[in-house]
Amino acid sequence: MCAAVTGDLQAIIEDIHRTLKPRLGEGKVADYIPELAKVDPEKFGIAVIDLEGNVFKAGDCDEAFSIQSVSKVFTLTLALGKHGETTWNRVGREPSGSAFNSIVQLEHENGKPRNPFINAGAIVVSDLVMAGHTPREAIGEIVRFVQYLADDATIGIDPAVARSEAATGHRNEALAHFMKSFGKLTHPVDHVLGVYFHQCALAMNCVQLARAGLFLAGNGRNPLTGHTVVSSQRARRINALMLTCGHYDGSGDFAYHVGLPGKSGVGGGILAVAPGRASVAVWSPGLNRNGNSLIGSLALEMLAAKTGWSVFGGPG
Amino acid sequence: MCAAVTGDLQAIIEDIHRTLKPRLGEGKVADYIPELAKVDPEKFGIAVIDLEGNVFKAGDCDEAFSIQSVSKVFTLTLALGKHGETTWNRVGREPSGSAFNSIVQLEHENGKPRNPFINAGAIVVSDLVMAGHTPREAIGEIVRFVQYLADDATIGIDPAVARSEAATGHRNEALAHFMKSFGKLTHPVDHVLGVYFHQCALAMNCVQLARAGLFLAGNGRNPLTGHTVVSSQRARRINALMLTCGHYDGSGDFAYHVGLPGKSGVGGGILAVAPGRASVAVWSPGLNRNGNSLIGSLALEMLAAKTGWSVFGGPG
Amino acid sequence: MCAAVTGDLQAIIEDIHRTLKPRLGEGKVADYIPELAKVDPEKFGIAVIDLEGNVFKAGDCDEAFSIQSVSKVFTLTLALGKHGETTWNRVGREPSGSAFNSIVQLEHENGKPRNPFINAGAIVVSDLVMAGHTPREAIGEIVRFVQYLADDATIGIDPAVARSEAATGHRNEALAHFMKSFGKLTHPVDHVLGVYFHQCALAMNCVQLARAGLFLAGNGRNPLTGHTVVSSQRARRINALMLTCGHYDGSGDFAYHVGLPGKSGVGGGILAVAPGRASVAVWSPGLNRNGNSLIGSLALEMLAAKTGWSVFGGPG
Amino acid sequence: MCAAVTGDLQAIIEDIHRTLKPRLGEGKVADYIPELAKVDPEKFGIAVIDLEGNVFKAGDCDEAFSIQSVSKVFTLTLALGKHGETTWNRVGREPSGSAFNSIVQLEHENGKPRNPFINAGAIVVSDLVMAGHTPREAIGEIVRFVQYLADDATIGIDPAVARSEAATGHRNEALAHFMKSFGKLTHPVDHVLGVYFHQCALAMNCVQLARAGLFLAGNGRNPLTGHTVVSSQRARRINALMLTCGHYDGSGDFAYHVGLPGKSGVGGGILAVAPGRASVAVWSPGLNRNGNSLIGSLALEMLAAKTGWSVFGGPG
Repeated sequence: MCAAVTGDLQAIIEDIHRTLKPRLGEGKVADYIPELAKVDPEKFGIAVIDLEGNVFKAGDCDEAFSIQSVSKVFTLTLALGKHGETTWNRVGREPSGSAFNSIVQLEHENGKPRNPFINAGAIVVSDLVMAGHTPREAIGEIVRFVQYLADDATIGIDPAVARSEAATGHRNEALAHFMKSFGKLTHPVDHVLGVYFHQCALAMNCVQLARAGLFLAGNGRNPLTGHTVVSSQRARRINALMLTCGHYDGSGDFAYHVGLPGKSGVGGGILAVAPGRASVAVWSPGLNRNGNSLIGSLALEMLAAKTGWSVFGGPG
Repeated sequence: MCAAVTGDLQAIIEDIHRTLKPRLGEGKVADYIPELAKVDPEKFGIAVIDLEGNVFKAGDCDEAFSIQSVSKVFTLTLALGKHGETTWNRVGREPSGSAFNSIVQLEHENGKPRNPFINAGAIVVSDLVMAGHTPREAIGEIVRFVQYLADDATIGIDPAVARSEAATGHRNEALAHFMKSFGKLTHPVDHVLGVYFHQCALAMNCVQLARAGLFLAGNGRNPLTGHTVVSSQRARRINALMLTCGHYDGSGDFAYHVGLPGKSGVGGGILAVAPGRASVAVWSPGLNRNGNSLIGSLALEMLAAKTGWSVFGGPG
Repeated sequence: MCAAVTGDLQAIIEDIHRTLKPRLGEGKVADYIPELAKVDPEKFGIAVIDLEGNVFKAGDCDEAFSIQSVSKVFTLTLALGKHGETTWNRVGREPSGSAFNSIVQLEHENGKPRNPFINAGAIVVSDLVMAGHTPREAIGEIVRFVQYLADDATIGIDPAVARSEAATGHRNEALAHFMKSFGKLTHPVDHVLGVYFHQCALAMNCVQLARAGLFLAGNGRNPLTGHTVVSSQRARRINALMLTCGHYDGSGDFAYHVGLPGKSGVGGGILAVAPGRASVAVWSPGLNRNGNSLIGSLALEMLAAKTGWSVFGGPG
Repeated sequence: MCAAVTGDLQAIIEDIHRTLKPRLGEGKVADYIPELAKVDPEKFGIAVIDLEGNVFKAGDCDEAFSIQSVSKVFTLTLALGKHGETTWNRVGREPSGSAFNSIVQLEHENGKPRNPFINAGAIVVSDLVMAGHTPREAIGEIVRFVQYLADDATIGIDPAVARSEAATGHRNEALAHFMKSFGKLTHPVDHVLGVYFHQCALAMNCVQLARAGLFLAGNGRNPLTGHTVVSSQRARRINALMLTCGHYDGSGDFAYHVGLPGKSGVGGGILAVAPGRASVAVWSPGLNRNGNSLIGSLALEMLAAKTGWSVFGGPG
């Protein structure tokens, strides 16, 4: 259990926690990755970090969970750093209009994924991050980058989850081989998937995750470390992608109810960004039918309503 | 030609106009509605109205054009006023991942359109707006609502455009009959399309359009008239829909480059909203491959960059 | 009730009738056309006419029913007579892999239907049959052609069914407008659909229907009248189309179980052709999930098994 | 070069060969499997074997080629022998309405392939043939079965082709992993694909291939060996599947022009069956846009026209 930190925001966080407590356990814990199915469905954590570095948190906010697809934000940031705007020759920027692991769109568009936040697109991003290196090197680089973003060298990968992903990742194997058949991956399929499965197995707690996303709230600069991670233009653009594509086929719904750029993972985590204000991480394992944390989404909707942080207009 | 009004913003507007002037005529004027094909492709207008009511404008900003699908924002607002959140039982809130007039998605989802800003969804919204009234009554109500929003009783429908739409609207006829076959329209198909074709034929200039959209920048309240059109929550939600779905299969791209909620029409108009700041209307008839104004999108990208109005983070 | 005519084949027919009697009423009577929903679900008729003109029949074989899509065989024959192989510039010859009224394929293939036996394709064939004439003239020509094929001037259209089709044909309206939007229909949509709805409303009994199809068993020549309707090559080709496309998305299943070219209608009728041997018509209103007569298909499977008429090999 | 054998049929074969000679080289040799791209595009062979065992042949009819997907007929026969009609719980019997390697249909139908002659379906059939055995055992069984059908123990697999398939088979990997993700394969993906890639690499000449298919012309019995391979019912059913599904998205076209059950392979071979009459194998490497031998299809069209063997009616 986290201790309270300071002020009004802390009260809001605690109120959200208290209100949602009776509903913990709702939704469906991801079971297609066996390791994820073992998680206690009643876990709930939330952490908010503002641009002054104040931390507000509640619940199981110090317990690490598998961030899964939230990692796609960090690997996209890495890929953009290496390849700049040419990244978009390899992956689109449009919402997919279909499920996170759909292959239909790929066939209709010659193997080019619609955006970097669906599985196919994230696999292409892993290929871009590799840039000629071995899987081991690329995985190391990703881990170090996330450690750097969160300013926390203890962050690592859960090897049991990584193995579990690889053993059961037939849908991702299908996506990768399909793109390879269109010449859309430059490295061997098993290398790219090795990287992808490991990035998904990153284990972080809510505080670490909120810290890692803080540069997106800070116009590209992490105010805790003073590091400029990306330009302010790039920060805005990553936020835009999170808002339009960050929740698979529930992205419109999340924008409607929450109004913040966000990226979810099937581990139940969501990273949300309030530009110019704060970075937020929530965790609750039960998922809604689009594969996004059910209680986590509600927590963010309540937070946005109470703080007036929606990017779409003031409170009231 | 518009006379300058005041200050820095006016300089920005004029700079944008000057910079884009050599490119006017780029893109492809919509030709599937014969009346639209007659428009001079080198027209360009822009108007910005801030929450204090200051108007900044340039180019052909006082010349009326066919707002086409921009009208979908106003009919959605009307429908939400009549039906509230039950509106969403009839139409979804997710980006479509396909062209503005696609019928494929409808077949896969039993005739329920993905969102109110693709044609199928807007036709359902017209059906909702009718609410048992005749087409003539519904059209009258829509015109009066837009006049009220813009505080300008001179706004009306271009009858030649409405006739032209009806005579060539086979794709929309197909969408409407298809939904009717799934029981998704309550009024006769020709009545609903009569309303839809007329709303698309609304003729407005940039200043009128920016005024009509000002309530979305003002948390639901039009500061010029003092009228509260919708609640601040509803204003945020309409803005969210515009951002995720407002530019058909180019919505992600518009969010990436501009970072403002917006809605385009094939007449070359775009209404964009800077929440808490201003309402913007641009007009340039040439379209990009997604059916959105090519030069109009560039103008908004420049405006957002120079003003720092992107909802996704500050300037720089 | 029909009286027995002659020999072994008559015994086979009667045996089939007796065997299936307990199952009459199975399947689902088409209800999307209100007039069809009124038919007694326990009706069953069968008629076989061999190339010597012998008639074998059982059940309600002299009662007229709505032949619906079986008419597509006759209008295709007419269209081929008028336009020859250029017909195939307007409609394909491949199985559709989807439901009889699917619109998805049309969008993916720019409005060109896959074959003349799905609704979209048959609507194009109606457009081809019109060839510049009025709907009234085209309908008259179709009726006279079917009368000529069956050598029976009493065959006509059921006006109540035609009206019922028109009043509820939103899916066909959608298909037609959709193709019109691609420029695939030369006549006005309502004219083409007028022809289409009337051809579907042709009322025939099993004996008439078997007679009308006899030219396809006789290498293009109707042995009863001595008329050569089409060349032997064209008869083979129409038979090939019936076999690959005649039962919508159940065509493969029908070929597997029956092994004869055939065309079904949602009125519960099926016309089947045993090349070089006989023409067969069956009628039973209950449909299987692909929209083909459930009991009618079983009757033909039994007939093919007992006679060894499958085009795919001898009995045993 | 083959020597003439006997009578009129030999003259027909030679006439076909002579007529098509100037066109040899038309079409596009498959290049996605590197080994296949090495084949001389001007090769042409044909062999016809009637139920009395007479062999008629011309061209390169004694030169082995890669039979590729023609093998799907033989593995389906094996699977039906092991699993009977329960085979159809795992794979459908309908034409696909899409390309041979399409994955779209799989997603829409929960991983169940439409028929055993598209790649996805054939991979399921390989899984069925394995029935718990190792890949090596299953491959051995397939080879021995084809040797038995053709009564020729010299038939084997081209190992260079098998390796080439495996190295470049990303589309097939995608299909297999995709089905595995739906639980549609019982053996490990790489085992199933090992079997599949080897069966496709079977090397046979036209005479061997025509002999192997003779049981399908003989109501299930190979008249050369006297072996009853399958029941006459099953022979008819396999023929029906070949007619409706044997040429991918060109099956309707093949039925229209040739009128015989047939199965093609991207190596340029086609096996065609004239029930009650003869088995035919042709080989010409250039493919049409549907992936079927262009000249081979023409040769069969000429043969069917000259012999009157179409299953859809007599000659003339």
